[in-house]
Amino acid sequence: MSQAVHWADGALHVLDQRALPATERWLRCRSVDDVVDAIRTLAVRGAPCIALTAAYGVALAAGAGDRDPARVRERVLAAAAQLAAARPTAVNLQRAIERCTRAFERKYRVEPRRAADVPLQTARRLEREQARADRLIAHHGVRLLARGDRVLTHCNTGPIATGAAGTAVGIVIAGHASGVVQSVWVGETRPLLQGARLTAWELGRASVPYRLVTDGSVGALMARGLVDKVVVGADRIAANGDVANKIGTYVVAVLAERHAVPFYVAAPTSTLDPSTPTGVEIPIEERSPAEVTEFAGVRTAPNGASALNLAFDVTPAELVTAIITERGVLEPPLTLAIDVCMQPRTSAA
Amino acid sequence: MSQAVHWADGALHVLDQRALPATERWLRCRSVDDVVDAIRTLAVRGAPCIALTAAYGVALAAGAGDRDPARVRERVLAAAAQLAAARPTAVNLQRAIERCTRAFERKYRVEPRRAADVPLQTARRLEREQARADRLIAHHGVRLLARGDRVLTHCNTGPIATGAAGTAVGIVIAGHASGVVQSVWVGETRPLLQGARLTAWELGRASVPYRLVTDGSVGALMARGLVDKVVVGADRIAANGDVANKIGTYVVAVLAERHAVPFYVAAPTSTLDPSTPTGVEIPIEERSPAEVTEFAGVRTAPNGASALNLAFDVTPAELVTAIITERGVLEPPLTLAIDVCMQPRTSAA
Repeated sequence: MSQAVHWADGALHVLDQRALPATERWLRCRSVDDVVDAIRTLAVRGAPCIALTAAYGVALAAGAGDRDPARVRERVLAAAAQLAAARPTAVNLQRAIERCTRAFERKYRVEPRRAADVPLQTARRLEREQARADRLIAHHGVRLLARGDRVLTHCNTGPIATGAAGTAVGIVIAGHASGVVQSVWVGETRPLLQGARLTAWELGRASVPYRLVTDGSVGALMARGLVDKVVVGADRIAANGDVANKIGTYVVAVLAERHAVPFYVAAPTSTLDPSTPTGVEIPIEERSPAEVTEFAGVRTAPNGASALNLAFDVTPAELVTAIITERGVLEPPLTLAIDVCMQPRTSAA
Repeated sequence: MSQAVHWADGALHVLDQRALPATERWLRCRSVDDVVDAIRTLAVRGAPCIALTAAYGVALAAGAGDRDPARVRERVLAAAAQLAAARPTAVNLQRAIERCTRAFERKYRVEPRRAADVPLQTARRLEREQARADRLIAHHGVRLLARGDRVLTHCNTGPIATGAAGTAVGIVIAGHASGVVQSVWVGETRPLLQGARLTAWELGRASVPYRLVTDGSVGALMARGLVDKVVVGADRIAANGDVANKIGTYVVAVLAERHAVPFYVAAPTSTLDPSTPTGVEIPIEERSPAEVTEFAGVRTAPNGASALNLAFDVTPAELVTAIITERGVLEPPLTLAIDVCMQPRTSAA
């Protein structure tokens, strides 16, 4: 069972990440609206995990209501459109939904009465594949680390961000288990503190030594020589290797370059988006200013304060040392490496 | 009357900046212990303002108790030592205290019975001088700005940080009043949110348009071409021009260099410390991890989470476009400019 989402009794159960680390609360999503709400409010987050959640959302739509094939198809397509619009930046979300609808349509053309079961089958396959991808990412990633490494990461990319072992945090946990990673610097990741709330929680459960720092501390840490490697996740990687990830990632990458600290991006190939040429074309979600002006329900800024809350930034490919995927480590020139990596393989979904 | 500290009825009244912007609460400090506590807990903060507060703290010690000259002197020297140890990074604090004790000792040698009044006179003179310095800093600083500038600042350097018009924020407010500054990006400045709580409050009161951002947003803003100038304050500037300032400043400076955005430091010459050769020798205060793991009494990180809370970082001189002081704008080579600026003048304190 995934640590973040699981399907049981015809409903999708989602760990409410907003309540962590204080409370481990599960939400029961019975409708597509519930799923969209969970994604929008960040009850569930992390590019691979929202992809998985959305796939199960399509499954919910397929199974909710009568079995008339045309009606099922209507519900599936409406749910797909609704879920795809829930958040704009992570491409995994769109990918997973397209995969569900394509598989549904294929079946619908030949056996319309059995198509209703396809989205759930697809979601379950996606879950298995993501778990396998995470294991392979950890395998490839650990080989890039050296004994005693103090790794800095940003935001949350652990088990609850993917529904399996995690990407960047998966590497760190595997690296610590194999005696390579000495300790982890966790950027708290304002405004929603995914680092402080979620990564710290996951590393603590995995008994990995870590220290939390404010996002502005990354410069001082590197200037003092306290960071050996940076490993972060990604929400979308453009064809040229530009990486959209949680706001603040670009700052870390620029500092890493200045201090000659390798900057690794860990992401499944479902995060690679060859149809987006560069980072400039990646849609960047702008979230509510209240996430910046309030904290835990406490208003911090003056009444009437205006804020800009960009949820992601773009790290240009030139700052990326390598991208760690389940298919191996992609090194510069990234345009070529991504192109080769995304060539069709023998097996297809 | 200063907006941050004022002396009345034999006591020092301090605006409790911890309660802002929700509440404007004044603390009445009757003893040196009260003053040290106000400085340590950041009820009062900002390098020039803590200097002023400490000077009044010495005055409190001189006046509290009997007038026997030897006893007064004991109290003054004990208070000076206690206040100097309250916070380590801002050199203005040490400077102001030394000035009070030197003036006291000069008087004590010739008229010991009248020396008790000297610390208060010195503190009042310091307050007038700092107010004049702020006005001149704003004058020099505004001339470096261009019409339509969108200025980014970090932490708080406004009226409540100096007890007068402010340094970096003083420039911004004067620049807006004179029609040059279009708007301000305010970095929220974790962990204690001096940007969100204090700078936003001051800019709002001065009717300067601003938008608040998380500290990690600075890269995205600059990459989008939304920042024309950076102006920040300083807590200590070494002989070579290295600048210690609120944690996160170095990050802003590195990003500014990458995006060819001028990076200005606004500080009175009392912040220049020729006796510290480079930033490496500046003592950097490490504050309680609880400032990172908790917020407004709400725990955000898991129980047992470890955090490192460096209060300041060091921006190397090579990243500083110019230092704006009351004596004029210091441009590279900063070692020479600082040396010339700190040569003894005709008037002495």
